[in-house]
Amino acid sequence: MASTSPSELLERARAGHVPSIARLISLVESNVDDVTSILPDLYAAGGHAHIVGITGSPGSGKSTLVGRLVGELRSRGSRVAVVAVDPSSPFTGGAILGDRIRMQEHALDPGVFVRSMSSRGALGGLSRAVVEAVSVLDAAGYDVVIIETVGAGQGEIDIVRTAQTTLVVSVPGMGDDVQAIKAGVMEIADVHVVNKADRPGTNKTVLEIKGMLRFGPHPEEGAWQAPVLETISADGTGIPELADAISAHRAWLESSGELPRRERLAAARRVTTLVQELMVAQLTQPEGEEAFSRAIDDVAERRIDPRTAARELIQELVT
Amino acid sequence: MASTSPSELLERARAGHVPSIARLISLVESNVDDVTSILPDLYAAGGHAHIVGITGSPGSGKSTLVGRLVGELRSRGSRVAVVAVDPSSPFTGGAILGDRIRMQEHALDPGVFVRSMSSRGALGGLSRAVVEAVSVLDAAGYDVVIIETVGAGQGEIDIVRTAQTTLVVSVPGMGDDVQAIKAGVMEIADVHVVNKADRPGTNKTVLEIKGMLRFGPHPEEGAWQAPVLETISADGTGIPELADAISAHRAWLESSGELPRRERLAAARRVTTLVQELMVAQLTQPEGEEAFSRAIDDVAERRIDPRTAARELIQELVT
Repeated sequence: MASTSPSELLERARAGHVPSIARLISLVESNVDDVTSILPDLYAAGGHAHIVGITGSPGSGKSTLVGRLVGELRSRGSRVAVVAVDPSSPFTGGAILGDRIRMQEHALDPGVFVRSMSSRGALGGLSRAVVEAVSVLDAAGYDVVIIETVGAGQGEIDIVRTAQTTLVVSVPGMGDDVQAIKAGVMEIADVHVVNKADRPGTNKTVLEIKGMLRFGPHPEEGAWQAPVLETISADGTGIPELADAISAHRAWLESSGELPRRERLAAARRVTTLVQELMVAQLTQPEGEEAFSRAIDDVAERRIDPRTAARELIQELVT
Repeated sequence: MASTSPSELLERARAGHVPSIARLISLVESNVDDVTSILPDLYAAGGHAHIVGITGSPGSGKSTLVGRLVGELRSRGSRVAVVAVDPSSPFTGGAILGDRIRMQEHALDPGVFVRSMSSRGALGGLSRAVVEAVSVLDAAGYDVVIIETVGAGQGEIDIVRTAQTTLVVSVPGMGDDVQAIKAGVMEIADVHVVNKADRPGTNKTVLEIKGMLRFGPHPEEGAWQAPVLETISADGTGIPELADAISAHRAWLESSGELPRRERLAAARRVTTLVQELMVAQLTQPEGEEAFSRAIDDVAERRIDPRTAARELIQELVT
């Protein structure tokens, strides 16, 4: 397996060979030169999956909900991949234990792929890794790719934003919803889910969210109106309706012209980030290192100002 | 004044003309093309000021302490500038009200300059603005430039790190010190200050900090040993000793060779950031916008992968 070329891996991944998919994700993440040659083919093969982001505070029963949702989507004939993001987890790379605990019921189903991703220091790095993994899973032909995060900070909101359809999961009581509102999470929801809806306070939480939605911008003709759904992930109540809402949002994205608009925005963000990353990478590569080191000396000894040095360095590195 | 050229402003600023200094800071912050031509001269004129960072939790009496310290440094014949960073303040640009409240006693002293800086959305932007302001104040010949922050998050730690000598201010009791340890602030201190040292619990806090310092790396021969000083900013107790400690640290930076090492690190960080900023700026300038827009279309429609698009875009923009 170690000697399999990236293009062979891509071919096998596209044929649904799970170990090849897993290996390709690792390869793309590690960003080795080797993989550069297959990026055009990898990227061209994608664009068909429905990317669904799911976030919500810890304790909202998100993981169980995702498990149920995967079951429902499978019963409808979809192949489903899950990228579970847990920045606080001490596991690095593919957190195998996490994968197993999460999705035991789907462990033997070849139509389900699960990848856990945990912190690699910077959330920026994690964010990139998620985007790359999703592009591999998209190319491998999964119909739905779910990105699950714990939804704490800005970094995770940024990750969930890369999805086409975003679910925000709340639970009754505990002021959890209010917390989410404060954190700016509620605004990004295309579908609201109040999970554990057999608990007291469910109606109140549903009403609070609906009330909040009314304070938002007045919906334009043809705009998407985020539904507020009740689920009980423990017994599966409300899961078919949730799957319906997710499909309905995708259909709206396509019919309204919002999908290409979002794709364009995502492309702009990604190209911008990559332009920055590629330039910084140049500074530490052998060809760039000498020029960078000289520029630093010049700046430190005030023979040149930092901005002029940066401008000259760009010219020298690129041309 | 509106028609004064940047190079005239620089000349007047170097002669100590306070309104020109203030205007030059605004000009450099706004990053207009106009100012680019004077950056080499501005930067070459600097490199003499002692940059001192002061951080600590809100309520530690930092602002009063800074006021006292400015008085002490003035009595020793130094010209002093203060950049007060308050990311949570609703004021934008030069928060004049904040300046006045802070340093009323020095308001009529031409040897003291105060600039407040508050949030402009991103901490990265604030961080850059502080560095630029410091470079103007350095060029204008202030002997000491103090950067004061409230020391809450990583962003502010990054700002204080741009200083040559860093003071961390604690207060007795309240577990404030422990909080600071958790936030990773204590490690960056070159000088520890326990302010409000007339309060009960002062000894305990001093001992806690000293105990923490013992857990750090074993000091090498000639390494700086961060002193733990007690001050009462309300009546000025301990302020001369604090000024002595700050001078002693600067002397150590020079004699140990640590100063050029830090300057080099700072230069590397700044040039790296500027390379990224300049590239992103190119994407939105008229010459770059068309190529960027084309690249986004190609990526969104999957004719090219994002990484290859970014690489080609860099070539096109720079050459």
